[in-house]
Amino acid sequence: MVEAFTLHEDPRSGNCYKIRLTAALLGLPLATRAYDIMRGETRTPEFLARVNPNGRIPVLQIGEGSAARFLPESNAACWYLAHGSVLIPQDRFAQADMLRWMFFEQYSHEPNIATLRFWLRFVGEANLSAEQRGQMMAKRVAGCAALDLMNRHLAATAFFSGEAVTLADIALFPYTHVAEEGGFGLGDYPHILAWIARVQALPGFIPMP
Amino acid sequence: MVEAFTLHEDPRSGNCYKIRLTAALLGLPLATRAYDIMRGETRTPEFLARVNPNGRIPVLQIGEGSAARFLPESNAACWYLAHGSVLIPQDRFAQADMLRWMFFEQYSHEPNIATLRFWLRFVGEANLSAEQRGQMMAKRVAGCAALDLMNRHLAATAFFSGEAVTLADIALFPYTHVAEEGGFGLGDYPHILAWIARVQALPGFIPMP
Repeated sequence: MVEAFTLHEDPRSGNCYKIRLTAALLGLPLATRAYDIMRGETRTPEFLARVNPNGRIPVLQIGEGSAARFLPESNAACWYLAHGSVLIPQDRFAQADMLRWMFFEQYSHEPNIATLRFWLRFVGEANLSAEQRGQMMAKRVAGCAALDLMNRHLAATAFFSGEAVTLADIALFPYTHVAEEGGFGLGDYPHILAWIARVQALPGFIPMP
Repeated sequence: MVEAFTLHEDPRSGNCYKIRLTAALLGLPLATRAYDIMRGETRTPEFLARVNPNGRIPVLQIGEGSAARFLPESNAACWYLAHGSVLIPQDRFAQADMLRWMFFEQYSHEPNIATLRFWLRFVGEANLSAEQRGQMMAKRVAGCAALDLMNRHLAATAFFSGEAVTLADIALFPYTHVAEEGGFGLGDYPHILAWIARVQALPGFIPMP
């Protein structure tokens, strides 16, 4: 039985793009349903009751109707789609090392680089709260540290968990390749730039909208 | 061949405890090497060059001497230890759903609940910077939202990813069961309290130091 996949998403979100990129690289059909997070469309009673009680997108819907199951968290959704594929190494250490970079992405990368991009590009610096302004410098420093670590790692390897693309690259690509929209200059990170070009050259690659 | 495992840790860290708890539940021998993060012992040139260029603990060392490999990120280390064990469900959806809670832990739980505990218990409220004070209310609100989501989920299930313990429970247990040290009252979350008791009753359970 082939399962039907539906992505509940905001097309502007890099976390949603991760899942579409995974499906594209694997040639999997993926339906989409769009929500505008700026208008609170993922906080409605219907969304909270049926799709995700956490009120966030992306959510991967597996199956349809009353048998549908819902999987929040972008990296978990990518894991589900890539089950048994070349995007997840089977070697015990390589698989754990891939997950290491995916947890790094959620803890050390996304809250700094994606958040600054969201604030500067979508909210607008003039509209930030005092509390948000107070966090900008710490997020700038932590985001640069994340990019520096990635750049040093990529000096010795073509992709994050070895010489072939894995979900680690798919998790880290979206917000890294648009980091300049968050005020991070990528010119200081030549190995990241070379890796971005390698990801963009993958068969089946699709760009972020 | 049996691999030797060494945990590079600060015994006060809940992220390190996750890995010790995984090893204990599985009956795996685990050597430890302690560092004091408050004294910068994970920022020395030796640590950065050999153990983790990110300057953080925990790191799971696999093997010894020149063949040793190093795995940062607590949840990835737990994944490596639990490879092929009952702590990782083999069902495709259950496995992805377990990872969903582990990514939730790193993104929505740890930065709020563990950070407030660290600030209030180890740094001391009087010693916080103005920037840290400015973040306390947002972390309080987000931490309560995480606990509320967990409590509602646990109303219908014994453990996070079904009726048996998995790595999702091990990832969420450490900072949840000491959340009161971060100023979170657990009395409002009866299903969390019942789950804490279930985890503490598991064969092989070890307490956090």
